[in-house]
Amino acid sequence: MALLGIDLGGTKLALAVFTEEGNMLSKEVIALGNRKGNEVGELIIEQISVVLHSHESNEKKINAVGISVPGISHPGTGTVWAPNIPGWDNYPLLQEVKPVTGTLPVTIDSDRACYILGEVWQGNARGCRNAIFLAVGTGIGAGILVNGEVLRGSNDIAGAIGWMALNRPFNDEYIRCGCFEHHASGEGIAKMAGMMLRENKTYTGDLKNKPAEQINSYDVFSAYEKGDPLASGLIRQCIEFWGMAVANLISLFNPEKIIMGGGVFGPAVKLIKEIRQEAAKWAQPVSINQVSIDASGLEGNAGVYGAGFLALKALSGLNHTY
Amino acid sequence: MALLGIDLGGTKLALAVFTEEGNMLSKEVIALGNRKGNEVGELIIEQISVVLHSHESNEKKINAVGISVPGISHPGTGTVWAPNIPGWDNYPLLQEVKPVTGTLPVTIDSDRACYILGEVWQGNARGCRNAIFLAVGTGIGAGILVNGEVLRGSNDIAGAIGWMALNRPFNDEYIRCGCFEHHASGEGIAKMAGMMLRENKTYTGDLKNKPAEQINSYDVFSAYEKGDPLASGLIRQCIEFWGMAVANLISLFNPEKIIMGGGVFGPAVKLIKEIRQEAAKWAQPVSINQVSIDASGLEGNAGVYGAGFLALKALSGLNHTY
Repeated sequence: MALLGIDLGGTKLALAVFTEEGNMLSKEVIALGNRKGNEVGELIIEQISVVLHSHESNEKKINAVGISVPGISHPGTGTVWAPNIPGWDNYPLLQEVKPVTGTLPVTIDSDRACYILGEVWQGNARGCRNAIFLAVGTGIGAGILVNGEVLRGSNDIAGAIGWMALNRPFNDEYIRCGCFEHHASGEGIAKMAGMMLRENKTYTGDLKNKPAEQINSYDVFSAYEKGDPLASGLIRQCIEFWGMAVANLISLFNPEKIIMGGGVFGPAVKLIKEIRQEAAKWAQPVSINQVSIDASGLEGNAGVYGAGFLALKALSGLNHTY
Repeated sequence: MALLGIDLGGTKLALAVFTEEGNMLSKEVIALGNRKGNEVGELIIEQISVVLHSHESNEKKINAVGISVPGISHPGTGTVWAPNIPGWDNYPLLQEVKPVTGTLPVTIDSDRACYILGEVWQGNARGCRNAIFLAVGTGIGAGILVNGEVLRGSNDIAGAIGWMALNRPFNDEYIRCGCFEHHASGEGIAKMAGMMLRENKTYTGDLKNKPAEQINSYDVFSAYEKGDPLASGLIRQCIEFWGMAVANLISLFNPEKIIMGGGVFGPAVKLIKEIRQEAAKWAQPVSINQVSIDASGLEGNAGVYGAGFLALKALSGLNHTY
C-alpha cells in the first residue's frame, strides 16, 4: 500500500509517493512553464497516470491520492480557485482527475491546510490537535488545525491572515492584499525596500547593487545579515508585524504550536526567537506560555506531505472523501 | 422535561428554567452582594436546590443543568477560573454542585462560550455552524463556534480577543488587559474619557458634569448622542478598533455571523452599520460579503440561554457531560 501526494504550486508541480507510515519513497518536481488553465489540469492527470502505472505491478500500489492547491478548495463541489494559475477561478479539478484515478479516493485541499497537516503528520507539529502553520511567502496565509480538524469556515476561505488589520489608520495600499501581507510578506518586503531606496537618496549600501524594482526579499535578508541599516529597519518592522500576528493567533486559538514556514522562513527562521519576544508583549499571557513556536520540520515539503496525509485520512475515513 | 440554565456574573446570579424547545418558563436574578469564594458556591448550590425541589412534583421536572461562569471552565477537571470572584482561581465548581444535582448531567462553560451557544439556540445565530459572539462589556471576549462546536484551544482559553494587537507600537498600558480591551472595552472607554478630560482644560461639554474618575462608558455614549466633540472623537476611535477586530475575525474564521453583544452593545448597537463599513476596508473581501453582523437577539439573556443549551446538549449527548 502507498499514498500519492501532489503539491501544485504557482510555478511547479511536486508528486511524492509515501508509505502509510509517512516515509517518502520518491518525489518528482516538474516546472509548470507557461501552462495555464486546462494545460495544468492535463499535466496533473498525465503525472498521476504515470505514477499509478509505475506502481501497478508493485507491492507499493497507490491506494489514495491527495492534492494540495495554491488557493482555495471547495470539497462540496470538487472545484478549486487558484489565483496564480490563469483560468483556475472555479476549476473542476476533482472531475478532471476522476477518469484517471477511478475508484481511488481523491482529496483536494488548500496549500495552507496541507502545510499544517504535513507538519502534524511528519513535521514539527506531530501529536498536536490545535496548531497553526503561518505561511509567509510571496503572500501570507495560515493553515489552522482546531481540535484535529482543519478550520474551513462557512465557505472554505478561513485562514486568510494576510488580511489581518494590524496598523491603523487604514492605508489605501491595503486594498489589494491586506494590511499584514502588505507589510510583511515576501512581496511586501521587496516593495517596501524598493520604495525606501527610491526615497532615500543618500543610501549607499548593498541594496544599491540592483535596480530598486528588482530587489526581492532574499536581497533584503542578505543585506540585513551584513548589518545594512535600511534592511535592518525593514526587518525589525517585519518582526513587529509577525510578532503581532503570532500573538493574535495565540490569543484567539490558544494553540499548542505555531509553525513559521513558507519561502521567507527560510532566511527569517533565525528570527523566531525575536518574533516570540515581540508576540509575548501582546498575547494573552497564559496562552503565550503554553505555545511553542517552531520552524517547519519538512524543509519546503510541508505541502506534499500534507497532500500525502490527505490521502491517508481518506483511507482511514477521517476526512471528506470522494 | 425541563432544563436549568444558570448564568453566574461578576455581581449577580441568574437562573432560568427552559423547555427543551427553548421557551423560558421562569427566571430569577440574585445579587451576589459581598459574597466571595465558597459563599458564591453555596449560593449556587442553594438556588439549584430550590429550583430542583420546586419542579420535583411537576411535569416540568429538571433533567439537566448548565452553568455559565465569568471566566474559564476546564471540562477535564470540572474547575473554573473567574477573575472577578475572589477565591475562584481554580474553583472546584462541578464537585461542589454534584451532591445537590445527583445523577443529573451538569455542564459548565465560559460565559463567552454560552453567549454564542445561546444565540445559536434561540437568538440571532440560529442555524449557524460558524458564528462568533463578540462580547464588549467591562472587558472584551469572543465566543467562537467552529463547525458547530465551541473553540476551546489546547487549554480552554481560546477567544481571548481583548488581547488582540491592533495598534503599533506597543504601549505599556496594554500589559494589564491587552491592546483591544485597553482601547475599546467599557472600562477602556471610561478610562480614556477620564484621561482626555484631565488633559483637555478648555472642554466644557456634558462630561464635565461628573468627576473624571467617575465617568463610565454610558456617560460617553450619552454625550456622543448629543454630539459632544470629545465623546464623538472617542467613539469614532472605538468604531475603528471594533471594525478592525471584526475584520480579523472574518478573515481568520470566515463565519456566517458575528453577533455584537455585551453591556456596551447596548448603547453601541446603533453603530453596527459603521462598524461593518470599517471592517469592510480591512477584511478578506470575499469573506466580508458572506457574513452578517447583528446585535444579540436575547436582550442580555444570551448567557442564561447558552447555559440552558449546555443542559440540552448534555441530554442529547452532543457535548461533554459529567
